[in-house]
Amino acid sequence: MKIISGGVCAANGFKANGIHCGIRKNRTKRDLALIYSEKLCSTAAVYTTNLVKGAPLKVTKNHIENGYAQAVICNSGNANTCNANGIEIAELTCSLLSQKLGVKSHDIVVASTGVIGQPLDITPIKEGIPSLVDGLSYDGGEYAAEAIMTTDVLKKEIAVEFTVGGKTCKIGGIAKGSGMIHPNMATMLVFITTDCNISPKMLQKALSSDIQNTFNMISIDGDTSTNDMVTVLANGMAENKIIDSDGEDFNAFMKALNTVTVDLCRKIASDGEGATKLLECVVFGAKSKEVAKTVAKSVICSSLTKAAMFGADANWGRVLCAIGYSGAEVDVQKIDVYFKSSKGEIQVCKNGSGVDFSEEKAKEILLESEIDIIINLNDGEFTSTAWGCDLTYDYVKINGDYRT
Amino acid sequence: MKIISGGVCAANGFKANGIHCGIRKNRTKRDLALIYSEKLCSTAAVYTTNLVKGAPLKVTKNHIENGYAQAVICNSGNANTCNANGIEIAELTCSLLSQKLGVKSHDIVVASTGVIGQPLDITPIKEGIPSLVDGLSYDGGEYAAEAIMTTDVLKKEIAVEFTVGGKTCKIGGIAKGSGMIHPNMATMLVFITTDCNISPKMLQKALSSDIQNTFNMISIDGDTSTNDMVTVLANGMAENKIIDSDGEDFNAFMKALNTVTVDLCRKIASDGEGATKLLECVVFGAKSKEVAKTVAKSVICSSLTKAAMFGADANWGRVLCAIGYSGAEVDVQKIDVYFKSSKGEIQVCKNGSGVDFSEEKAKEILLESEIDIIINLNDGEFTSTAWGCDLTYDYVKINGDYRT
Repeated sequence: MKIISGGVCAANGFKANGIHCGIRKNRTKRDLALIYSEKLCSTAAVYTTNLVKGAPLKVTKNHIENGYAQAVICNSGNANTCNANGIEIAELTCSLLSQKLGVKSHDIVVASTGVIGQPLDITPIKEGIPSLVDGLSYDGGEYAAEAIMTTDVLKKEIAVEFTVGGKTCKIGGIAKGSGMIHPNMATMLVFITTDCNISPKMLQKALSSDIQNTFNMISIDGDTSTNDMVTVLANGMAENKIIDSDGEDFNAFMKALNTVTVDLCRKIASDGEGATKLLECVVFGAKSKEVAKTVAKSVICSSLTKAAMFGADANWGRVLCAIGYSGAEVDVQKIDVYFKSSKGEIQVCKNGSGVDFSEEKAKEILLESEIDIIINLNDGEFTSTAWGCDLTYDYVKINGDYRT
Repeated sequence: MKIISGGVCAANGFKANGIHCGIRKNRTKRDLALIYSEKLCSTAAVYTTNLVKGAPLKVTKNHIENGYAQAVICNSGNANTCNANGIEIAELTCSLLSQKLGVKSHDIVVASTGVIGQPLDITPIKEGIPSLVDGLSYDGGEYAAEAIMTTDVLKKEIAVEFTVGGKTCKIGGIAKGSGMIHPNMATMLVFITTDCNISPKMLQKALSSDIQNTFNMISIDGDTSTNDMVTVLANGMAENKIIDSDGEDFNAFMKALNTVTVDLCRKIASDGEGATKLLECVVFGAKSKEVAKTVAKSVICSSLTKAAMFGADANWGRVLCAIGYSGAEVDVQKIDVYFKSSKGEIQVCKNGSGVDFSEEKAKEILLESEIDIIINLNDGEFTSTAWGCDLTYDYVKINGDYRT
């Protein structure tokens, strides 16, 4: 397996585009994305567990119930959530696209991201669809990646090449992250495409399993979005023997998928709203997978730990505190904690108590932009990793006045 | 019942003091508090559920197991938590105080608040105890309230007068709040004193019941502290017939206690780290008490809602989002939301969708320093209130570099 350039257009048979249609006032910001496959795709998706769900998610769920889709349309700037006419607008978007693209409305995945509770005007979408479709190209993945961004600062895309049954396959994806991110069973918006030949059932199995250790282990701000969705479209154009059961081929696919999802997780976390640092919390020595995950996520979610990391302050007591209230069964007297970055590694806590360490060295380590918080529970064999970011002035600034 | 001036010295027979002994470098900040009762007191307490517990909590729990205490000593500037010699230092503090005060070491409640994981030096405490004890007075409540503050900006004290069995009783309290506040079964540091005559068992029953709807319904930052504790000392000097069972007298006591605790909750929330606004989330129309509490607390804890309130932005979609991920069973299509302050009230959401409202009026309402977020679930008869504060630049500033 190797990382290659590109995102959703890396796999054979996928085209994409992204344009400014006018949902956003800023004319330089693309706000409507399209991904299209030349062949009908096995399709899998996972959705937010928030009871308040964006209308597009409900429409998409209905559309891909049969396990197939051929295109994805997504707007930014408006979440189309908590609007009385939300379902109607999402369906209308699909039917307008269907007419121009020549793909059945029922084979279209629709998504929206942005402000909740403001009616979404269909006019700019309607007016934008012709040029959106006409501009589809094998190089358009980048435009799509841009068009789904909201407060994101960086485009998030990745692609890898891998082998299944002697055939070269490709898988790539794009993501929109930044704020309201604390996925539970699903996550922000992520669109993944592959030319691997895989059945809808096995594709869903791969995705549902993968997200437990990837997107569900990110948190930017503890707020589970209303519009989270991850979809994977697989068009089979790599012509490998179809993956329709567990085995070596499925494992190869899972590994490639995981490479894509972990990369997108790290990109989403490091581009959290206002973030200056990517935080990776690695827990090992846990007595169960559940304990490892609970501890890792609790530390990543702690506002006090996040603020300390912003200030490059080795305040490990906050890490212990977050472990203690996580709800996981741990033996506090066994816990060791380390901080690590490209500048080195330092132990700050042993057996649940502080150890003498150089504050100067700790500062040097914590001033870097990628920090590992390493926790050894010394209580078993299970491990887990969670991703987050620091809490900064800019998070407050961005969210103090998001709508204007 | 009426509110009277004072705090822990309002009730008969209680003296207090607070001095600077040298735990903190800032010489103008008092850092050692003492509360003393002329008579042995029925004593109740609740403690943090964090698995990482401050050493003083363990010592206190042991000391008041028999239901009685006569004095409280508390330092700020160091939490005496995650230190190998923590228990030893807490016991030593009690025994040094015992010698000077003439109260059994086992009848002393000990508490600490401040940085976690730095050994607590006994020297300044030892040197401070003589003047701490010599300075005890009936007017010293204010000094004690100051001495337990950490990043608190405002002193928090309250007292009320009430009648039990024809006798006038008084109850008053002080609190330390500000950061690492998301109590679960117990809370930050709160010391309450009363001259009401009540058995240890009924006092514990009153406290354990009250905190479910008061201190457990505050959140500043989602971080449950390691050192949370609420204690009530009742010396019986009001000479009412002892309250040793349920009934009218117990109810009168409960009501007075609740007046004190709700007041301290509001003071703690409005003085949250960096806070500019007190947020009160009032949920009604819930189908169970549990649903009402879960929804209220979820909204108060939402970083995005808190940041929007800082910016006086009527972004009610974030309130709906927080209700949706709270885990409570609600019917989204029935939810109404209102914002209210001294400048008026405005409805922003009806039946789960937005309503037209004046952004100008909403801004005027949200610019005030006390904001009510009112949620009607239209699904039953239960209500709940939670308290929190906005998320501001100063929260990040305070916590980006707390230790230095």
